[in-house]
Amino acid sequence: MRLSELFTKTSKTIPADEKSRNAQLLIQAGYIHKEMAGVYSYLPLGKRVLDNIAQIIREEMNDIGGQELLMSTFQNKNIWEKTGRWSDVVIDNWFKTKLLNGTEVGIGLTHEEPIINMLKPYVNSYKDLPLYIYQLQTKYRNELRAKSGIMRGREFYMKDLYSFSRTQEEHEDFYTKTAAAYQKIYKRLGIGDITYYTYASGGYFSKFSHEFQTITDIGEDTVYLSKDKKLAINKEVYDDELLKELGLNKSELIEKRAVEVGNIFPLGSKYSDTIGLFYLDKEGKRQSIVMGCYGIGVSRLMGLLAEHFSDDRGLVWPQRVAPFQIILVSLGDDKKVLEEAEKVYKRLTEKGIAVLYDNRDLHPGEKFSDADLLGIPYRVVISQKTVEKQRLELKKRIESKSELVTLDQIVSKITRD
Amino acid sequence: MRLSELFTKTSKTIPADEKSRNAQLLIQAGYIHKEMAGVYSYLPLGKRVLDNIAQIIREEMNDIGGQELLMSTFQNKNIWEKTGRWSDVVIDNWFKTKLLNGTEVGIGLTHEEPIINMLKPYVNSYKDLPLYIYQLQTKYRNELRAKSGIMRGREFYMKDLYSFSRTQEEHEDFYTKTAAAYQKIYKRLGIGDITYYTYASGGYFSKFSHEFQTITDIGEDTVYLSKDKKLAINKEVYDDELLKELGLNKSELIEKRAVEVGNIFPLGSKYSDTIGLFYLDKEGKRQSIVMGCYGIGVSRLMGLLAEHFSDDRGLVWPQRVAPFQIILVSLGDDKKVLEEAEKVYKRLTEKGIAVLYDNRDLHPGEKFSDADLLGIPYRVVISQKTVEKQRLELKKRIESKSELVTLDQIVSKITRD
Repeated sequence: MRLSELFTKTSKTIPADEKSRNAQLLIQAGYIHKEMAGVYSYLPLGKRVLDNIAQIIREEMNDIGGQELLMSTFQNKNIWEKTGRWSDVVIDNWFKTKLLNGTEVGIGLTHEEPIINMLKPYVNSYKDLPLYIYQLQTKYRNELRAKSGIMRGREFYMKDLYSFSRTQEEHEDFYTKTAAAYQKIYKRLGIGDITYYTYASGGYFSKFSHEFQTITDIGEDTVYLSKDKKLAINKEVYDDELLKELGLNKSELIEKRAVEVGNIFPLGSKYSDTIGLFYLDKEGKRQSIVMGCYGIGVSRLMGLLAEHFSDDRGLVWPQRVAPFQIILVSLGDDKKVLEEAEKVYKRLTEKGIAVLYDNRDLHPGEKFSDADLLGIPYRVVISQKTVEKQRLELKKRIESKSELVTLDQIVSKITRD
Repeated sequence: MRLSELFTKTSKTIPADEKSRNAQLLIQAGYIHKEMAGVYSYLPLGKRVLDNIAQIIREEMNDIGGQELLMSTFQNKNIWEKTGRWSDVVIDNWFKTKLLNGTEVGIGLTHEEPIINMLKPYVNSYKDLPLYIYQLQTKYRNELRAKSGIMRGREFYMKDLYSFSRTQEEHEDFYTKTAAAYQKIYKRLGIGDITYYTYASGGYFSKFSHEFQTITDIGEDTVYLSKDKKLAINKEVYDDELLKELGLNKSELIEKRAVEVGNIFPLGSKYSDTIGLFYLDKEGKRQSIVMGCYGIGVSRLMGLLAEHFSDDRGLVWPQRVAPFQIILVSLGDDKKVLEEAEKVYKRLTEKGIAVLYDNRDLHPGEKFSDADLLGIPYRVVISQKTVEKQRLELKKRIESKSELVTLDQIVSKITRD
């Protein structure tokens, strides 16, 4: 894409009404627009980042047998009343609205109840299970305060997967498999080495649930970390009993700030039993289904990546997430330079590389500072000097040194990364 | 995908609470699930159809310079009050909800106001225009009655594009370009030859707007059609004056039922003026922006295609829209048949063809009637007979005759279509 055609512009002014660094940066770079506290629109660059993260998650969920669907936003009161979760006392962050005839409807904040109900015509026999069903969808939660930018929104984009297993053992197998898929996702997003499988509070259904916590100074959670054992304990469940159970010593744990980037919950059979989803086993006997749910906040991850990888010049997107792989910058209005830039833009694009071509008539300093703020992983500069030398100037966003290279070298470098 | 792994199943029972044929068929075939009147979830097959339609629209919108973003669902009352459209009297199908602090928020039914407001930091000079901005997004409208399945939902998926031009002439150029892009979309969806550019009521801003009406017996609208001139007039604006203006004779027009599958509205400068979005011309003088909006209902199109192309055996998806290109059916449990089926499944998939492999242990009749109900364009059968003849049995969903062909012939046929 040509930068001259992109409607967003960068801004040097830090938005006064934003306390969180992710929202400040993403607004200044033109990735998002604030509609109200906790509610953001995703502008073209932001939409590309969101889609890139979603696609990585989708691929890994498909890989473990997930089937993608899209549940409705509007929620049927009758279904939620069965589990008692329609009540605003039980679930304190519902948004609700009304049909013209007065019927109350909920605005989807999670989808256990409707997915269980939807499955009724499809699940009868043990042959119909196990099932792993997921969606990538906007969710709505009525947060009292929303000060963390896109890391905790009233309206946010998430992946939620629901598993339906025949036995506890089958459930646990999938639970483990999902945990591994989550680690793959974080690795592809560039946070594999700082993201830990974490013991957290289990809620109603089991002693513990598991979170994935990314260790970062911007975190709001506190975890106790064992680097050797590659696991962490959320402060909320950190006690001697658990340490003993996990065979951990206080001395090997370090206290760290962290951000929750995923969670997996054992749900048992409570919801499916209540709504009336069962299966018949080989002997024709009615059995309960063992459920799990598995969430990853896509917009939250985008916020974390924006904030964690930023520096004082702006965003620093990991390779797989960046809206473009290369920002191509032409310097000056020399005809040869512009011709060469067009040629390089065309050739890189043909190679399937996403290139943002800064063809604007601006001073080099402005173009470079925009390239830094936008956080595109590679900057390629074409100037009179590079044309003379028949090379291109390549610099990584995270490095300060540039090098003169050929187009083929750029292609092989980016394809490899 | 293997049909044995898909969680949905077909049903022979017509859902009692559905009057519309599109919802009946799509529910029986397991494409959608009804949550409440006018609110449906999209199951894996339905999601694939929705995505296919959306992708065709996206490509054509990008082709005319559209920039894709994703606006929020939640709407800021303050912005809508400026144009007077917050009022439930003016807009009678708002859904609204409340933040915990009591602040009212709207649930997005269209996005003129927030998009104009979002553009304020980005549009100043004539150099920043024209702009064409669109999204593919779930919208919510509080319809009093919702009896048309996914063709008129309370929650529905649509593409909405907004154009911002410097002059009336520039606006009209783009308006014409969009009309052409819409025709391309309908052609790719398989309804090009029955979809007409139609004069309709203009609302506040101009004498006429334009709709695209697909001629079909299932239509709720009435249009007067000139096949020669490739245009139609909606009954609501059909009068002698318009006929004269368009140089049409009553005698050359035929009355037909039709479904609106798109609309393009000239908006003038009313909303942008009111919200305060202007540009400075070359002389530094403040000027109004000329706007247009352009909608296509993605889920409505899916409903139309489902209903219009169906027959008494089920769905008949157009090639580009179908969730899979081929349904591969193995007959019997002969080892050679199953091996051949696996091999063919693998090879077709490797060629990039979307194949649904019916590997279930069912009677041929059941498999064939499911293949018909699901509406996959091509059926490939592997049986003892085809294995002996070293051929595959190919049948189009819309034809009754099958033929024995080679795998290469199938690949070239499907790639060509």
